[in-house]
Amino acid sequence: MIVTLLTDFGTADYFVGALKGAVLAANPEARVVDITHEVPPYDVEEGAFTLRAAFETFPEGTVHVAVVDPGVGSARRGIAVEGRGHTFVGPDNGLFGHVYERVRPFKVFHLTNESFFRREVSATFHGRDVFAPVAGALSRGVSAVELGPEVEDYVRLPSAAPERLACGTLAGTVIHIDRFGNCVTNLSPADLSDEMVRGGALLVVCGREIRSFRRFFAEDAGAAGEPFVVWGSAGLLEIAVFRDSAARVLGIRRGQSVEVRKVER
Amino acid sequence: MIVTLLTDFGTADYFVGALKGAVLAANPEARVVDITHEVPPYDVEEGAFTLRAAFETFPEGTVHVAVVDPGVGSARRGIAVEGRGHTFVGPDNGLFGHVYERVRPFKVFHLTNESFFRREVSATFHGRDVFAPVAGALSRGVSAVELGPEVEDYVRLPSAAPERLACGTLAGTVIHIDRFGNCVTNLSPADLSDEMVRGGALLVVCGREIRSFRRFFAEDAGAAGEPFVVWGSAGLLEIAVFRDSAARVLGIRRGQSVEVRKVER
Amino acid sequence: MIVTLLTDFGTADYFVGALKGAVLAANPEARVVDITHEVPPYDVEEGAFTLRAAFETFPEGTVHVAVVDPGVGSARRGIAVEGRGHTFVGPDNGLFGHVYERVRPFKVFHLTNESFFRREVSATFHGRDVFAPVAGALSRGVSAVELGPEVEDYVRLPSAAPERLACGTLAGTVIHIDRFGNCVTNLSPADLSDEMVRGGALLVVCGREIRSFRRFFAEDAGAAGEPFVVWGSAGLLEIAVFRDSAARVLGIRRGQSVEVRKVER
Repeated sequence: MIVTLLTDFGTADYFVGALKGAVLAANPEARVVDITHEVPPYDVEEGAFTLRAAFETFPEGTVHVAVVDPGVGSARRGIAVEGRGHTFVGPDNGLFGHVYERVRPFKVFHLTNESFFRREVSATFHGRDVFAPVAGALSRGVSAVELGPEVEDYVRLPSAAPERLACGTLAGTVIHIDRFGNCVTNLSPADLSDEMVRGGALLVVCGREIRSFRRFFAEDAGAAGEPFVVWGSAGLLEIAVFRDSAARVLGIRRGQSVEVRKVER
Repeated sequence: MIVTLLTDFGTADYFVGALKGAVLAANPEARVVDITHEVPPYDVEEGAFTLRAAFETFPEGTVHVAVVDPGVGSARRGIAVEGRGHTFVGPDNGLFGHVYERVRPFKVFHLTNESFFRREVSATFHGRDVFAPVAGALSRGVSAVELGPEVEDYVRLPSAAPERLACGTLAGTVIHIDRFGNCVTNLSPADLSDEMVRGGALLVVCGREIRSFRRFFAEDAGAAGEPFVVWGSAGLLEIAVFRDSAARVLGIRRGQSVEVRKVER
Repeated sequence: MIVTLLTDFGTADYFVGALKGAVLAANPEARVVDITHEVPPYDVEEGAFTLRAAFETFPEGTVHVAVVDPGVGSARRGIAVEGRGHTFVGPDNGLFGHVYERVRPFKVFHLTNESFFRREVSATFHGRDVFAPVAGALSRGVSAVELGPEVEDYVRLPSAAPERLACGTLAGTVIHIDRFGNCVTNLSPADLSDEMVRGGALLVVCGREIRSFRRFFAEDAGAAGEPFVVWGSAGLLEIAVFRDSAARVLGIRRGQSVEVRKVER
């Protein structure tokens, strides 16, 4: 019965209010919870990261509406994604790209059953007219299979999954730079065993080798100014510099590729 | 049991928290939903538009608290408005001016029954001390007639209702300019038949005649730079320019009058 | 079952979403209510004031999560405070300093029982991993005594309680300056009888004596430009100048000491 909202609508306009009303019109018992409405406008990658970092703390049964939708009015599909007890509703544009890595096995349904839409669907506001009513319906027990046919060709996000190269090297991407300049990669504990981190690995980014893998931000703070690697609070490997911006020190931007290699003994 | 909030309080201060607490103290079962707290300070017109554009998506039975209240502490009345299954609580200063056009038939009650107010009513914070507790009471089943006497001389908003002139011309107003520069008028489908829009009408604004009535923003995009008229997502006629600001191109400000005339055949 | 949130996280990031999810994972029936997430980063004093001004409007039984936590990852304790039917969860750094003055008698518990924490506790995000799950547990009926041992040496806030000097003078502090420049002191009606205010008292701030105690902001507005003292909407004595900034006119900053003396007759 919990329905979360994540959009790039901002909070000044009537958009968020209309979205909430549309969820509640479809299910007056739903409990609507804001994740954020401050995703930078049209920034699907950033929305995908924020959704990934926030959704897993919610209990099973939660429905997540996400709307960062530069293609509204075009032919892009609306979809619902179901996996690990969570359901996601929004545009098929990569916004669920990181989620796909975290909710396996999952199913994706194309939203074609208009009986769950708002009576009149505008060309510009599918959040209110399609996604919110569908989320309301799901939260009152409608099954995702009723929404439309299952599809396999949903849009992936190139940065979502790291790659394991033939040589054993792990190739990942910086998917988010936080306000402190820490560079969050797409590498999770599932990709990189604790043993590997402890036993000896080095991360290469922008031609620089980083050998220091720390457990905490403040650990071994002696080596000030030196970049290090740490598991951040989003559960992903981050590149950091103690009390400084790793992004600035190393010249990293979002989308930068990184590699993790085993160290020779 | 749903209570929405719309204010000009901003979100940094304690005001919104105190408002929510006061609703929940009057009805711990209420589900409090933010529409926005970012109405520009004291901008009753803008608050009136946002409320109008957001409230209709909510289910019947919803109570809406709206506080944009430059006259707090003065003699302006507090009122509750009941119509079409929605109830509105706030100052009698025009904030419900657009709502009146959408919830007919409706009744307006002057909030005089202090037994529904907070124990101590401050001079400066009627949102917390009067409107929130009254909304909480309404949401737990108190009837609006218990709040005080019905009144007829509530404050209207000059821009709320378009006028039909003797010659058949429809005279309206630009009531909102959105962040893209689209100019939202107060003309709804009830004022302007689809037949009229399709059959031949022209809109005059700032001495300029616009003959292009489109269904979508991207429709017939060939005529780039040309202003056109379209039904926007708030359900109102908007003046737009494809990928440009109609407000800038045409020199329109909020409050600008517009006319819709039938085209001679 | 109501859980309020007050943080310095801002609303753009995933932090607030993760916090809400963690409350709801511990108690899916909890109703989560935002007070604010715009406390200036690490500003414990400001967070303490906002919490004090907002919490009392909420009904008994409410659980309040507050996270302004510059010391996260260090040795500072997590605590729960119980008093007057409200429970507060957060870091032991003075954030509840004003609350202590308002919920007597109260008890403080050190959060040591890890069975109420999230499975994995990160070094940097105790809001999500400790405080939110504990608040969720409290909201579903867990008793505060189960959380850990009661402690007496919790961190107080120097500015929280005014002092009564031997000579009868009351010594207080400016704890908040609002956006209009009104200077909110820590003096409440409990410290300063109405009789005293009416019968004759003067407030000394920055070497200036203020003798005008008003009931409303606009009362006796004749003396424009003159500072006066008034009970503000937070229930505290404020220093104000009609339509001007008292902070600017008098040169007051947060932390400024004030004295209230009886006037000789």
